[in-house]
Amino acid sequence: MPVLVMKFGGTSVATLDRIRRAAKRVGVEVAKGYDVIVIVSAMSGKTNELVGWVNETSPMYDAREYDAVVSSGENVTAGLMALTLQEMDVPARSWQGWQVPVKTTSAHSSARIEEIPSDNIMAKFEQGMRVAVVAGFQGVSPEGRITTLGRGGSDTTAVAFAAAFNAERCDIYTDVDGVYTTDPRVSAKARKLDKIAFEEMLELASLGAKVLQTRSVELAMRYKVKLRVLSSFEEQSDTAGTLVCDEEEIMESNVVAGVAFSRDEAKMTLVSVADRPGIAATIFTALSEAGVNVDMIVQNIAEEGRTDMTWSCPNDQVKRAEKAIEDAKQAGVIRFDELIADMDVAKVSVVGIGMRSHTGVAAKMFKVLSNEGINIKVITTSEIKISVLIDRKYMELAVQALHDAFELEKAA
Amino acid sequence: MPVLVMKFGGTSVATLDRIRRAAKRVGVEVAKGYDVIVIVSAMSGKTNELVGWVNETSPMYDAREYDAVVSSGENVTAGLMALTLQEMDVPARSWQGWQVPVKTTSAHSSARIEEIPSDNIMAKFEQGMRVAVVAGFQGVSPEGRITTLGRGGSDTTAVAFAAAFNAERCDIYTDVDGVYTTDPRVSAKARKLDKIAFEEMLELASLGAKVLQTRSVELAMRYKVKLRVLSSFEEQSDTAGTLVCDEEEIMESNVVAGVAFSRDEAKMTLVSVADRPGIAATIFTALSEAGVNVDMIVQNIAEEGRTDMTWSCPNDQVKRAEKAIEDAKQAGVIRFDELIADMDVAKVSVVGIGMRSHTGVAAKMFKVLSNEGINIKVITTSEIKISVLIDRKYMELAVQALHDAFELEKAA
Repeated sequence: MPVLVMKFGGTSVATLDRIRRAAKRVGVEVAKGYDVIVIVSAMSGKTNELVGWVNETSPMYDAREYDAVVSSGENVTAGLMALTLQEMDVPARSWQGWQVPVKTTSAHSSARIEEIPSDNIMAKFEQGMRVAVVAGFQGVSPEGRITTLGRGGSDTTAVAFAAAFNAERCDIYTDVDGVYTTDPRVSAKARKLDKIAFEEMLELASLGAKVLQTRSVELAMRYKVKLRVLSSFEEQSDTAGTLVCDEEEIMESNVVAGVAFSRDEAKMTLVSVADRPGIAATIFTALSEAGVNVDMIVQNIAEEGRTDMTWSCPNDQVKRAEKAIEDAKQAGVIRFDELIADMDVAKVSVVGIGMRSHTGVAAKMFKVLSNEGINIKVITTSEIKISVLIDRKYMELAVQALHDAFELEKAA
Repeated sequence: MPVLVMKFGGTSVATLDRIRRAAKRVGVEVAKGYDVIVIVSAMSGKTNELVGWVNETSPMYDAREYDAVVSSGENVTAGLMALTLQEMDVPARSWQGWQVPVKTTSAHSSARIEEIPSDNIMAKFEQGMRVAVVAGFQGVSPEGRITTLGRGGSDTTAVAFAAAFNAERCDIYTDVDGVYTTDPRVSAKARKLDKIAFEEMLELASLGAKVLQTRSVELAMRYKVKLRVLSSFEEQSDTAGTLVCDEEEIMESNVVAGVAFSRDEAKMTLVSVADRPGIAATIFTALSEAGVNVDMIVQNIAEEGRTDMTWSCPNDQVKRAEKAIEDAKQAGVIRFDELIADMDVAKVSVVGIGMRSHTGVAAKMFKVLSNEGINIKVITTSEIKISVLIDRKYMELAVQALHDAFELEKAA
């Protein structure tokens, strides 16, 4: 029988009633003839409670013990979901990560899945079991210890199972009904997309859209797993939600698929740095070693052997960046006049695979912003994305203006 | 290095603060030179919450899923305890049942431990680890599924580890400071015992003293594991609590060690049963198949081929017993005049290994009760115990009178 993977996030299994509602959706797919692998998160709030206890006990915790504690929430949901399905006369059982086993690296609290043998679960499907409920977010290391995959890791578990079992589709049930052209709280004209390409979803996920974990999209793209994002709180239908798929499967699409934004950005500028070969490497090695996630980088044209170096990074890493640069100055490896941090910036991006074949998207974006009197501080581009850093107070205005200008409220 | 097993019950690990207090006690034993195996229960209330969810989801639940859900509470405490010890610079790590592995039978929700290989943990002790924190109450079946040992099963886990690792002692930390001659809430003269023999503890545990799970005492007796019961809320000392040990280690002891009682008893009498060979077997098979735990049994002398049959059982099983007897009557296998249930009875017992060598204990007990005007309804005896069923309203009076008469307030 064809295999379907269904993943339910924390809000979709937050109470026994919601678990029952989720189980009914599983029942519908079983009735259609699928063997279903259900991936569950912890009941919402549980993982935060466990993480809180670990942090209070040991701020610099042993990640192996963190994983042992934090993984327990998913085990509870998996057992309860299996029991709920059994009550509905659907043959089901639960699996914890180590029982499958979901083999991962030893990078505790951010492990990567290396292999998921399918024989154990397939044998049960052949014996008549219809649903395998698997605790998401967790696996087992080569040393036999429990690992976790990082926050949002259950999405990755789901996609990895879909790949390992050659599933027809991987449905991600969450509390939103799909992927939107932008956040509906910022633009009332935001429209739900029926389909979006893997590459676009990947850019949107890494630019701040919180629907799917970035790694799960990467994995889906690599193994060509059809991903569907949909709400567990709406009516069930075959066309609900947004399908994340290969671009070949999208017949028509707008040049721009969506507008993403991130409020938590800071812009830092190192004024009048001595411009010599290797200076960029020196600066960004220092920042990287201090754990600063540098995003955009701009280097001005040098004048008289000196230049300005500008970068953006998350707001809450500015202090760390300042210390790293100050340390490098003390050590004599960088010389500069001043380090300026601008905390009141935001990043706005337009994303779309159509950009590959359409020119003029960047020019149009800059013109739209200019018409609104919004000054662009930093620009970066990739093949299917243009991002700009602007004053934070203009962020909503910029998103709305771009959404209008690219006519995202209309389907292609 | 010698191995010590320390078990902390739910109230002893109910909060992060209490886990810290427990960890400090472990630290003291490590400083003395012990390699310590710590067995932890779930934080108090957690297991009840999980059991509640399972019952609400599926009243006739699959015990395999029950075990998968209910065992998760201990995993949380084990990880938090290991982290707390690490914060105190004590090298520690946690183990879940399947990681040791604690091999059990497949009797889910009441599994029995079959084997605990010690090599895995011993290897870590040899590498310098000082504390192995093990999640109590759980194990793994031959099929690789999680099992639990029944309520209070962490005591059994602790004793089984003490046996497997040839531990010097097994300390059970709980919310009472030891085993008393009787419940201090009933007799103000109740005295904490410094030592008690396994056999006595076993009788007291099965007669209603809730300090230790009966199976853990059986196991300790079989493997000669020195058990100590003590409070995690009192000052630490080498002589704290009560040592449960082989009777040879108890130099002097009172003839009677303690007075136990149980309020939740009922007396049932089948009036005028046809007295024929096999009638007792017929009655008690019917009751046993209905799940009635019959405790005491008395058969009167037969007159004219008819007799009365009396037994005691827990109060809340009376309805079930009545139905079983009624069914047997309908089926024509028993004939009788009347079935009388007396719900207002209590069982009072005196226990002591000294009874083996001292005569007259029973006579003294009956005389004491008679002096107080208390009528005895049923009597049973074993080698080291005498139990009587009396009207419940006299229970406290009987316990106090017996405690006084056998001078239990005085140490031997």
